[in-house]
Amino acid sequence: MSQPTHAARVAAEGAGTALLLATVVGSGIMAEQLAAGNMAVALLANTLATAFMLYVLITTFGPVSGAHFNPLVSLMAFKDGALPAGVLAAFVLAQVVGGVLGVGLAHAMFELPLLQWGVKARTGAGQWLAEAVATAGLVLTIRLCVRYRPQQVAAAVACYIGAAYWFTASTSFANPAVTLARSLTATFAGIAPADAPGFMLAQCAGAVAGYFLASVIMTEKERI
Amino acid sequence: MSQPTHAARVAAEGAGTALLLATVVGSGIMAEQLAAGNMAVALLANTLATAFMLYVLITTFGPVSGAHFNPLVSLMAFKDGALPAGVLAAFVLAQVVGGVLGVGLAHAMFELPLLQWGVKARTGAGQWLAEAVATAGLVLTIRLCVRYRPQQVAAAVACYIGAAYWFTASTSFANPAVTLARSLTATFAGIAPADAPGFMLAQCAGAVAGYFLASVIMTEKERI
Amino acid sequence: MSQPTHAARVAAEGAGTALLLATVVGSGIMAEQLAAGNMAVALLANTLATAFMLYVLITTFGPVSGAHFNPLVSLMAFKDGALPAGVLAAFVLAQVVGGVLGVGLAHAMFELPLLQWGVKARTGAGQWLAEAVATAGLVLTIRLCVRYRPQQVAAAVACYIGAAYWFTASTSFANPAVTLARSLTATFAGIAPADAPGFMLAQCAGAVAGYFLASVIMTEKERI
Amino acid sequence: MSQPTHAARVAAEGAGTALLLATVVGSGIMAEQLAAGNMAVALLANTLATAFMLYVLITTFGPVSGAHFNPLVSLMAFKDGALPAGVLAAFVLAQVVGGVLGVGLAHAMFELPLLQWGVKARTGAGQWLAEAVATAGLVLTIRLCVRYRPQQVAAAVACYIGAAYWFTASTSFANPAVTLARSLTATFAGIAPADAPGFMLAQCAGAVAGYFLASVIMTEKERI
Repeated sequence: MSQPTHAARVAAEGAGTALLLATVVGSGIMAEQLAAGNMAVALLANTLATAFMLYVLITTFGPVSGAHFNPLVSLMAFKDGALPAGVLAAFVLAQVVGGVLGVGLAHAMFELPLLQWGVKARTGAGQWLAEAVATAGLVLTIRLCVRYRPQQVAAAVACYIGAAYWFTASTSFANPAVTLARSLTATFAGIAPADAPGFMLAQCAGAVAGYFLASVIMTEKERI
Repeated sequence: MSQPTHAARVAAEGAGTALLLATVVGSGIMAEQLAAGNMAVALLANTLATAFMLYVLITTFGPVSGAHFNPLVSLMAFKDGALPAGVLAAFVLAQVVGGVLGVGLAHAMFELPLLQWGVKARTGAGQWLAEAVATAGLVLTIRLCVRYRPQQVAAAVACYIGAAYWFTASTSFANPAVTLARSLTATFAGIAPADAPGFMLAQCAGAVAGYFLASVIMTEKERI
Repeated sequence: MSQPTHAARVAAEGAGTALLLATVVGSGIMAEQLAAGNMAVALLANTLATAFMLYVLITTFGPVSGAHFNPLVSLMAFKDGALPAGVLAAFVLAQVVGGVLGVGLAHAMFELPLLQWGVKARTGAGQWLAEAVATAGLVLTIRLCVRYRPQQVAAAVACYIGAAYWFTASTSFANPAVTLARSLTATFAGIAPADAPGFMLAQCAGAVAGYFLASVIMTEKERI
Repeated sequence: MSQPTHAARVAAEGAGTALLLATVVGSGIMAEQLAAGNMAVALLANTLATAFMLYVLITTFGPVSGAHFNPLVSLMAFKDGALPAGVLAAFVLAQVVGGVLGVGLAHAMFELPLLQWGVKARTGAGQWLAEAVATAGLVLTIRLCVRYRPQQVAAAVACYIGAAYWFTASTSFANPAVTLARSLTATFAGIAPADAPGFMLAQCAGAVAGYFLASVIMTEKERI
């Protein structure tokens, strides 16, 4: 019986987050270029690409590292005793570095400046509530699915994010590493750096809410 | 061996219906804002978001409460002896309250007035027939799938509603709690409150028809 | 151990084909009404609705009747010895009657005249080749999938038809009962009755080609 | 216990690649004809058709030949000792011939000249980087999925290519046989023949990179 090395797991978190960001940002660029001004068509394409890639990444990297790609998900694993503190730190670092590299890769493929600052304003109470709801729902989905339907985690998370791109007013970042990385692009998927901390705070609050809501829903009694 | 508590099951029905309505209404608002007047693109986005979320909610909440999110489905479970009367009442209450809260949550995320009345007229024989057909098909799908393919219920119900958004003239409400909640929004997914009772009656008639059609199709003989 | 009655199986073929046609025709009407003249958006909606419904119908009716909904598929089952001649006749009759009723149901929901003749010209060598290719591919998919991946038949057939709506020049009828039913609607999914026989002949030729191509690909040798 | 004959396996590679190319090229023609100039809608349709067909082809042909449809995937199987040199040569020949026939079939269905040269310029550093990334990701997906989730290979590859149509600047050819075949059509999916070698070189480089990245991520230690 063998298991992935520590380095393999960290590489998986880094490479997976890089591919996720390359997909989110790259498909946004392609969609905006082709959509002739119909932003609903552009967001549909961005949604499909992201959901498809999440399914792929969680299916293939999940058995190696757990396929977190999200500091809040790694923190939740740490809290549940499934991830030592040292691995948590390495995972978060890999996610942040991977995310930034993924954005740069998208820029390089589309022959845009590698280094950019986000310009799209995303702020205000509605946006923050949306990020809290998006993250709460993501944490709820992951906790329940891991407990009750572990074979369906990849499909469930992909579908959840696909829905959340549309039902939340913020198009559902739901991930501090993703938020940081997306503050480094002036394209479709970007966010102004000044607005990133507000998103991250809302995500943390939502994660806590989702964690406890999941606990309520998973409360069990002994069968007599 | 343990099982969910009564409170956990009721919380699951409430939270699940709230997320379903937040998705239906929220994605409708987003879609209409972005679609530049092409209502087919808006309904496509609304369809994808709803189908994705139904898959997530039935996959994750199904093992807790059965993931009804619909008084007619709970009533069917009661008729089949799978739900005591007291639980039925609690489930329906949770669905109604959850649905209303979900609509309010969507309004809050998009910074719209929390309390609204629906304004979209949805009435007439074609619409009522459509709701009866939509609900009959939903009940047929659930009964057959629970009997023959219990592992596929989440995917089948999500796909059924995704198809029914398009093939029924009413875009398939197929759920009295959803209908009530959607009478409280003046956005894309809304319905005028005066038209809600007609939809609900048609849904009840369709549920009865679907229940008996399923019984015909599930008739079995002993193998000799 | 029990099995569906003969009447249940015939009812399943009739009800399933009716729901399939209601979906194909109904979603076509809805899509054309909303698409503001962009026929690619309309066909995308028609595609999603049809693929979703095929997945539902094959998943739920498959364990009862095999979920043929297509005289050529029933004929193939008869040839392979899986369907007695009397059941074949009953299935084909149920498919034809169910298909016609499904078209009428779509018209009723959208408050259109129940009885219509198709008006859309679909003829010529390219269209006939397309129908032959569409049906050959369908038969190939079903035979291989039933042999090698029986749990995936519903998803594979749904995806195959979803692709074939786009890659064949005829949008892939691939089914004589569906062709007959669609000759009775003047809406998006219709076909002029005079053009139906050409489609049916091409479908028969394609089914034979697909059957033999599948036989070639499924040729096996004994492992030494 | 029996297994497919050598001829059956080669026929599967040829027929599968032909159907794949007929889908990529045919759906591109249909999409461009219907999309009224909105190229994002056209690419969405092209994406769905391709992803659906890949799922079908890998599900049904996988048990016969492995469903490579790509010389680089066959080469990887050869390197891993899973394919003798003679079979490798036959597979690559079948993929090339099948791909060309598939393009001709699409042209015939749409009543276009059977023999065409591609006209769309696809060249430059961004395009080559995109092809390298697309192919690296494909190889990574296949290697990890075959090792850890062999039942999900069809869904994962279909979703990967669906995402890569959007997130790579080149719309992800990721396959030398596909590139060669697509240099023989002047339609939506085409590529100018002069640009094909650059794509193929980039694909080879990407395949090597993806192969080694997968090796890093699959590194395992013995559990103590």
